[in-house]
Amino acid sequence: MSEIRVVQNLLKHNDEIAAMNRQRLHDAGVFCIDLIGSPGCGKTSLLEATMRRLNQRMNIGVIAGDLATDRDAQRIQACGAKVVQINTGKGCHLDANQVRHALDGIELESLDLLIIENVGNLICPVGFDLGQDAKVGMFSVCEGDDKAAKHPHLVCAADVLLLNKTDLHKHVRFNREVFIKDMRTLNPAVELIELSVVQGNLDRWISWLTSKIQAARSNNTAVAIMP
Amino acid sequence: MSEIRVVQNLLKHNDEIAAMNRQRLHDAGVFCIDLIGSPGCGKTSLLEATMRRLNQRMNIGVIAGDLATDRDAQRIQACGAKVVQINTGKGCHLDANQVRHALDGIELESLDLLIIENVGNLICPVGFDLGQDAKVGMFSVCEGDDKAAKHPHLVCAADVLLLNKTDLHKHVRFNREVFIKDMRTLNPAVELIELSVVQGNLDRWISWLTSKIQAARSNNTAVAIMP
Repeated sequence: MSEIRVVQNLLKHNDEIAAMNRQRLHDAGVFCIDLIGSPGCGKTSLLEATMRRLNQRMNIGVIAGDLATDRDAQRIQACGAKVVQINTGKGCHLDANQVRHALDGIELESLDLLIIENVGNLICPVGFDLGQDAKVGMFSVCEGDDKAAKHPHLVCAADVLLLNKTDLHKHVRFNREVFIKDMRTLNPAVELIELSVVQGNLDRWISWLTSKIQAARSNNTAVAIMP
Repeated sequence: MSEIRVVQNLLKHNDEIAAMNRQRLHDAGVFCIDLIGSPGCGKTSLLEATMRRLNQRMNIGVIAGDLATDRDAQRIQACGAKVVQINTGKGCHLDANQVRHALDGIELESLDLLIIENVGNLICPVGFDLGQDAKVGMFSVCEGDDKAAKHPHLVCAADVLLLNKTDLHKHVRFNREVFIKDMRTLNPAVELIELSVVQGNLDRWISWLTSKIQAARSNNTAVAIMP
């Protein structure tokens, strides 16, 4: 029982800090996503490509989580983002307190979008609210068509799901209908965006992202002019 | 401090049960591996191919860990293995107690080899001893050449590392020298076996596995005839 209580207390404490992060980001008019996917599904490549598409039009910040190395931070910084790297050591996910400290190192008022690239892991990050506006789940066709069914918690928690590496579909065994059927059974409403980061067909992703950012800006302005 | 103590107690309790599992497997003359890799690196496909190569020569048992579904168990059972599926719900790794209960459902004396296919996750399973003889870490070229550096705990803990999907190398960005250099920096002695499960070039893997199984048998016989 004491073990269960400790876990419950940790999650409650996490949620309280996440709520503070969320308020802070909303006050600054920043739209924030938590990007969750397995190691090598293409999260960092997606961020690089997203930066190249959007960094002339808006300011983007990134918090990059990894057990070790600052390789992701270096790659993303080279594309013009303001990056804070969090090395978690043996930690399998980011938590709200780590994000709170990372936010201290970012000038939020200058940002339009903050992307939190979570530690490569389809399981543990799902349960930890970080203060994001949207959870983005990412799979790739190389991982096999059973991954939606095998990771129901992510599929149910996600606001949008990305299916990457469609350029490799012809080289791997991946039954698209099976994947989509499993996904729809778990979360009938979730939006699926299929893309190939290396081929650069990111239009639907960019469109989804910019519409959310504009909505966040409008809300922020609306609140600001309310009495 | 109390949270740290709980984690330490959990790990100590796990290690005690793992030692019991190990003794039980040694007494039965079973060689046991813990297979750890990210979702979609090819663990289940490797087990299917391994079964097809070895199930005429020996008896193989499998414990398959997943959050949800019994799809892996069904695939492996179709190849002739004795399978116990463990669904972990939101659990990100197998622990020794789950394996202990699974062992109750397997006639160990009839087995030569037991493969524990851990939950698809490169992080959490590494810290939990299950009672295995060898930890096998599995990567694929589709995940990128930075994964050894980003997952140092698995690289350091592994007795052998597999690099799968070499058939896709020509279609993806993967610098083999970078991957191997990072791996060697972390663990100079670990054996690396590069393979493509779909192409079936498993000779080095099968050879590694059979030599270990024979050694386990010899040790078991030697112990049995000692006074």
